[in-house]
Amino acid sequence: MPRKHQKRWDDRDPDLRDLLRLPVGERPDLDAHRADARPAGPDDKDAARTATAELGERLAGLQERLWAAGTAGDRRRVLLVLQGMDTSGKGGTVKHVIGHLDPAGCRVRAFKAPTEEERRHDFLWRVRRVLPRQGEIGIFDRSYYEDVLVARVRGLAPPREIESRYGWINDFEHEVTDAGTTVVKCFLHLSYGEQKRRLLARLDNPDKHWKFGPGDIEDRELWPDFQEAYEIAMERCSTPAAPWYRVPADQKWYRNWAISRLLLEHLEELDPRYPKADFDVAECRERLLRAP
Amino acid sequence: MPRKHQKRWDDRDPDLRDLLRLPVGERPDLDAHRADARPAGPDDKDAARTATAELGERLAGLQERLWAAGTAGDRRRVLLVLQGMDTSGKGGTVKHVIGHLDPAGCRVRAFKAPTEEERRHDFLWRVRRVLPRQGEIGIFDRSYYEDVLVARVRGLAPPREIESRYGWINDFEHEVTDAGTTVVKCFLHLSYGEQKRRLLARLDNPDKHWKFGPGDIEDRELWPDFQEAYEIAMERCSTPAAPWYRVPADQKWYRNWAISRLLLEHLEELDPRYPKADFDVAECRERLLRAP
Repeated sequence: MPRKHQKRWDDRDPDLRDLLRLPVGERPDLDAHRADARPAGPDDKDAARTATAELGERLAGLQERLWAAGTAGDRRRVLLVLQGMDTSGKGGTVKHVIGHLDPAGCRVRAFKAPTEEERRHDFLWRVRRVLPRQGEIGIFDRSYYEDVLVARVRGLAPPREIESRYGWINDFEHEVTDAGTTVVKCFLHLSYGEQKRRLLARLDNPDKHWKFGPGDIEDRELWPDFQEAYEIAMERCSTPAAPWYRVPADQKWYRNWAISRLLLEHLEELDPRYPKADFDVAECRERLLRAP
Repeated sequence: MPRKHQKRWDDRDPDLRDLLRLPVGERPDLDAHRADARPAGPDDKDAARTATAELGERLAGLQERLWAAGTAGDRRRVLLVLQGMDTSGKGGTVKHVIGHLDPAGCRVRAFKAPTEEERRHDFLWRVRRVLPRQGEIGIFDRSYYEDVLVARVRGLAPPREIESRYGWINDFEHEVTDAGTTVVKCFLHLSYGEQKRRLLARLDNPDKHWKFGPGDIEDRELWPDFQEAYEIAMERCSTPAAPWYRVPADQKWYRNWAISRLLLEHLEELDPRYPKADFDVAECRERLLRAP
């Protein structure tokens, strides 16, 4: 009988990780890449939806195994980090990709501007408290990278402090990967033009106004600074243990497919297994049947 | 244009809350109720699946409004408490009902035996830390009721202490409802016979062994004591502000439909609204269009 969790896609398909992973130690040139590229996978919306739903089922199966293994002491877990400019689809990814998983095994956390209490601690303090536990899939909608992105662009901390943070992030990520966490960092690459369309669409729909703030326009006016901050972060914090993936995000359906597939490839490599019974199955069975 | 969130089912349909709510101050006789009853709703699996999926879409729409309202200061939130014997379907409810919602707005917490740290505090301490924030839907898979259920049956605390807990639970639930929480407490009512079938099914499938423990059989051997403990808890802690609902759980499809519907009725009554823009929409629009 074939193992249910074995790699099911055609092995001639390229590994999407290899296509989207940013090289370690190089500064990426975001302008040189298209945000509507499709380096592999479905070519249109309908095909992508079908493929993403199918990936979702396989992800759910692997998630259950990961969770089950965790109950028996397997320390492994996954942390999906989502970063990108406003409207790049971090929330949409949570809804449409993570929405396929069992909510019991997911730990979703959106990082806003730090509270007063959080500001009294180092920038990783609030992150450590919400890391996924063994067996879980944690999802960060924004993350500690904000502390070298918006913090850099808007000067929210002294330059020397920000310079130090890249190294602290690398240390931190080594620490969590050593503890059994597979860190999947996705930069949702949105184009300047597509962001304009999406922001206008929010303004044009009163039911979307709550998602909008004038700060979104201010950030947009600083677009080149943000792109540079992203490039620097990805240059300094793409490590073999925790690389960055650049996910083309101008097409929502492609973004959902690509992140589903990236997650799947990581989970298939983890290959979590249902744990063996640590009790006497036959004896339990008999005891159950013996009772009235 | 009809409001999207208005009650869409036929108004002649009974309110499921009225059919499943336990009367305040009366001890329910669980044996007098069938765990495979269907007091309203679909009659078979296929119809239930379709209806539950449709309820799921409506729930997701209302959840988004609740969340959106929360971002603008609406303090309301929902807490779904799931209790029931082993295999009654608490986890299945999270997967199949809560699975329809946006994970970003859900806070799922499963309560296991308390850790050493948790034991050093009063029994509500660990609960307070994971309550839903405004706009969220919190889901408890087991809850503080374990402290008057298993704790009572297995004598995990002195009888006097347990006697006090019912009052503390009522005080606590008043406090959280006063803070804007709609508390929906569901007892998943499973029959003794159906539990046997489900436990055997777990034993017969190695991929399900991780869900099983010999303690499940020990609890089953104490079935009458647990039923009594549930009856006492529901008698003492069914209040107008936070009533208990008895959900027939022998048929998984009915359980999923019923809890979806209960949630929907509560959310429709809350009738959360998208907040109005607190910024100048026309000015933002112009500013966006002005930039290159």
